[in-house]
Amino acid sequence: MPGMAQQILTPQADDFPRWYQDVVARAGLAENGAFRGSMIIKPWGYAIWEGVVAELDRRIKATGHDNVSFPSLIPYSLLEREAEHVEGFSPELAVVTTAGGEELAEPLVVRPTSETVIGEAMARWIQGHRDLPLLLNQWANVVRWELRPRLFLRTTEFLWQEGHTAHATAAEARGETLMILCDVYDDVVRNVLGMPTVLGLKTPRERFAGAAETYTLEGLMRDGKALQAGTSHDLGQNFARAFGIRYSDAQGAQQHAWTTSWGMSTRIVGGLVMTHGDDRGLRLPPALAPVQVVVLAISDVVLEVAERLTGELAAAGLRVRLDSNTSQSFGRRSVDWELKGVPLRLELGPRDLEAGTVTRVRRDRGGKETVSLASAAADAVESLDAVQRNLHDEALDFREAHTRDAISLDEVDGLGFWRLPWSEVGEKGEDALAERGYTVRCLTDADGNAPAAGFDALDGAIAWIAKAY
Amino acid sequence: MPGMAQQILTPQADDFPRWYQDVVARAGLAENGAFRGSMIIKPWGYAIWEGVVAELDRRIKATGHDNVSFPSLIPYSLLEREAEHVEGFSPELAVVTTAGGEELAEPLVVRPTSETVIGEAMARWIQGHRDLPLLLNQWANVVRWELRPRLFLRTTEFLWQEGHTAHATAAEARGETLMILCDVYDDVVRNVLGMPTVLGLKTPRERFAGAAETYTLEGLMRDGKALQAGTSHDLGQNFARAFGIRYSDAQGAQQHAWTTSWGMSTRIVGGLVMTHGDDRGLRLPPALAPVQVVVLAISDVVLEVAERLTGELAAAGLRVRLDSNTSQSFGRRSVDWELKGVPLRLELGPRDLEAGTVTRVRRDRGGKETVSLASAAADAVESLDAVQRNLHDEALDFREAHTRDAISLDEVDGLGFWRLPWSEVGEKGEDALAERGYTVRCLTDADGNAPAAGFDALDGAIAWIAKAY
Repeated sequence: MPGMAQQILTPQADDFPRWYQDVVARAGLAENGAFRGSMIIKPWGYAIWEGVVAELDRRIKATGHDNVSFPSLIPYSLLEREAEHVEGFSPELAVVTTAGGEELAEPLVVRPTSETVIGEAMARWIQGHRDLPLLLNQWANVVRWELRPRLFLRTTEFLWQEGHTAHATAAEARGETLMILCDVYDDVVRNVLGMPTVLGLKTPRERFAGAAETYTLEGLMRDGKALQAGTSHDLGQNFARAFGIRYSDAQGAQQHAWTTSWGMSTRIVGGLVMTHGDDRGLRLPPALAPVQVVVLAISDVVLEVAERLTGELAAAGLRVRLDSNTSQSFGRRSVDWELKGVPLRLELGPRDLEAGTVTRVRRDRGGKETVSLASAAADAVESLDAVQRNLHDEALDFREAHTRDAISLDEVDGLGFWRLPWSEVGEKGEDALAERGYTVRCLTDADGNAPAAGFDALDGAIAWIAKAY
Repeated sequence: MPGMAQQILTPQADDFPRWYQDVVARAGLAENGAFRGSMIIKPWGYAIWEGVVAELDRRIKATGHDNVSFPSLIPYSLLEREAEHVEGFSPELAVVTTAGGEELAEPLVVRPTSETVIGEAMARWIQGHRDLPLLLNQWANVVRWELRPRLFLRTTEFLWQEGHTAHATAAEARGETLMILCDVYDDVVRNVLGMPTVLGLKTPRERFAGAAETYTLEGLMRDGKALQAGTSHDLGQNFARAFGIRYSDAQGAQQHAWTTSWGMSTRIVGGLVMTHGDDRGLRLPPALAPVQVVVLAISDVVLEVAERLTGELAAAGLRVRLDSNTSQSFGRRSVDWELKGVPLRLELGPRDLEAGTVTRVRRDRGGKETVSLASAAADAVESLDAVQRNLHDEALDFREAHTRDAISLDEVDGLGFWRLPWSEVGEKGEDALAERGYTVRCLTDADGNAPAAGFDALDGAIAWIAKAY
């Protein structure tokens, strides 16, 4: 079996980018679309994304945000209102110049993000302090022209949610930015996706175009490169000033609102693949897996019992699939389910039937174990909990083994995270790192937490440095 | 109270289009975006759409379809491969000509629909008969340039699902087209949205560009105009030939596949408004309503009991909202919840508290009824069932009262449906009707069912004629 897997995927140790390409293709996650940089998300990849969507959406709603939908085309003049914003996004824009058979008087930009068009509406919707906070979210596709596209990680178009909120005070806006980072994004990324990320603050160089502060979640992939899993921006009053988002306060005075925006995208699917995947394919955390358990019927003799077992697993609340496709070889089917990363496989053959057992294979660690058929459903629930914990802990162990403290920039070399006092780096050091292909992924306080007070109030911050996707 | 509602909305009888505008604005469903024809879907409108999405998505998956995501930009050359298709859509296209700061060698069209780009992928994915049927669906935004835009009904951009399937035989493709029409769309439209529509076949004049047959669901709005609620297309082998979607059959011979496509969009929200709405605002069917019951606390004295009642309603599985905003007048809050169409309002005041009762107001028929507080939750479940049935039945009664049989085209006059044997209409009669602003909305058999055999096999078909949205 390991031999078969080796034939299917390039081993990670040989060529990690090639392994990634292989697993995205062979697990049926996605493929290239008809023009450069475009992506077709296939059923298995989309089912994984739907899991992320459901988990995020539930938390976004539970924290008081309403979903809305804004147009995907934005008049160019709206983008121009925030100078840094338009400067940051201009090189990546796709522009509609003709529509309905006629040249447009004003070109429309395919949205790269929606601060501008939502800011324009917020200015109309917000009058008094009672209209605040205004807490919105939208699920949408966005287009950013990419020169070096890579499936899920950098594509010309991607799917995401973008939250947009307005508040009466700076403190409330900062609180929202951090709440989304810690209570929504980190909860999903850590507890559902099993990805232990570092939560921190971006340096001014890496801030979102137009933001006052950008917070981020940075994961470490199995090749030692970092990946930004999501960002949460405190926009200060920059967009409120650009779009005239004002409210009259309790004293009747006109004030600019304080706004935030935050997004998580289909990029996270790529991060999931590179956090947990191994040389046999994906390893999906059970909390997210579209199929948590596959019951693999080895021959037709066991079909009746396999169906009953499948029913028991479904009744235990599990997402289960019966593979009764006995016309295909058992080995081929095992390899396919491993490729797809299904966390638990229960194999049922004639000998199992006689013995009243089933063979259990955990995707996270492999190896065959014998379980009583009578307790297979209860056992599966426990096993899935164990897989969930183990995938997270393995990823955390990997990150800790690949995180080193340095005392000067000269030490930074190779892959993994380097931790270094920000006072030793500074903006000049950051430029020097960039020339060597490194970035400061984020800044944390000495305890490894995101500095709530922001960049100008930094004291004793640690820079997390890595090569990155 | 009726007096107040009159002030808020233009009465339907005075000016139906104006009433529609008013209710869409005042119920917080949607508003115009930054450029002509664009739409911002606001929280209440989006929550209604999310209900439609959840109901459709569940049925689409239960019937074996997988969700996928294709790029929103399509190379123009792909559209050109199916001659009728490109001819039909060309006048409505929005075209991206520059991207990433450079003029594109080939312009990209913002998708008006995705048969072409999905057809191109199907040609790669389908090899043998074991790859069939291929059953795909995508949730997406599409852009079609509209000259006479109207919120939800005709907007430059709308949200929808588009199903795309490929089959080995003509009969299977026709079966899929009809299954979607009857078991998915009609089930949602009739049983969830409470809209009784006529299921039928489009005439060649009204067919989807490139289809062999188009099936439709046609509802009658409260002003007597028809609205197409969804369509299901049998594409024959037209797209399979244009894109080379071939499979080798059991004998090893190469065959073109038979494909279908089908879509339902945010337009249905407009149809819902115009099917059930009255002069006080929306009337939402309970199965779809984002909030099924609002508990309206008249004063702070009742808050504790109102909270307990809200908890009981939630425990009974209902979507419930407590309105404890006692700083606003009771009348204003009642009118707002009526505008939003919440099916059931339970008002709780100090006198109710004393008497151990609550005042029940059904949105479908108005009027105040007294219910024991102790049985309020069980009563609410029953009341909501009654509202659901009643809204459907009222709409059906309205349609039947506004459907007349004619024996010649000369009789067709005014609003509502006219039924006339297709043999009395014919394609010439259809042209004559068009000049008078009428269309044949669909053809049914004599029993009012969709003719499964298609246009060329019609015998004794009835044409349903109306003015339409």
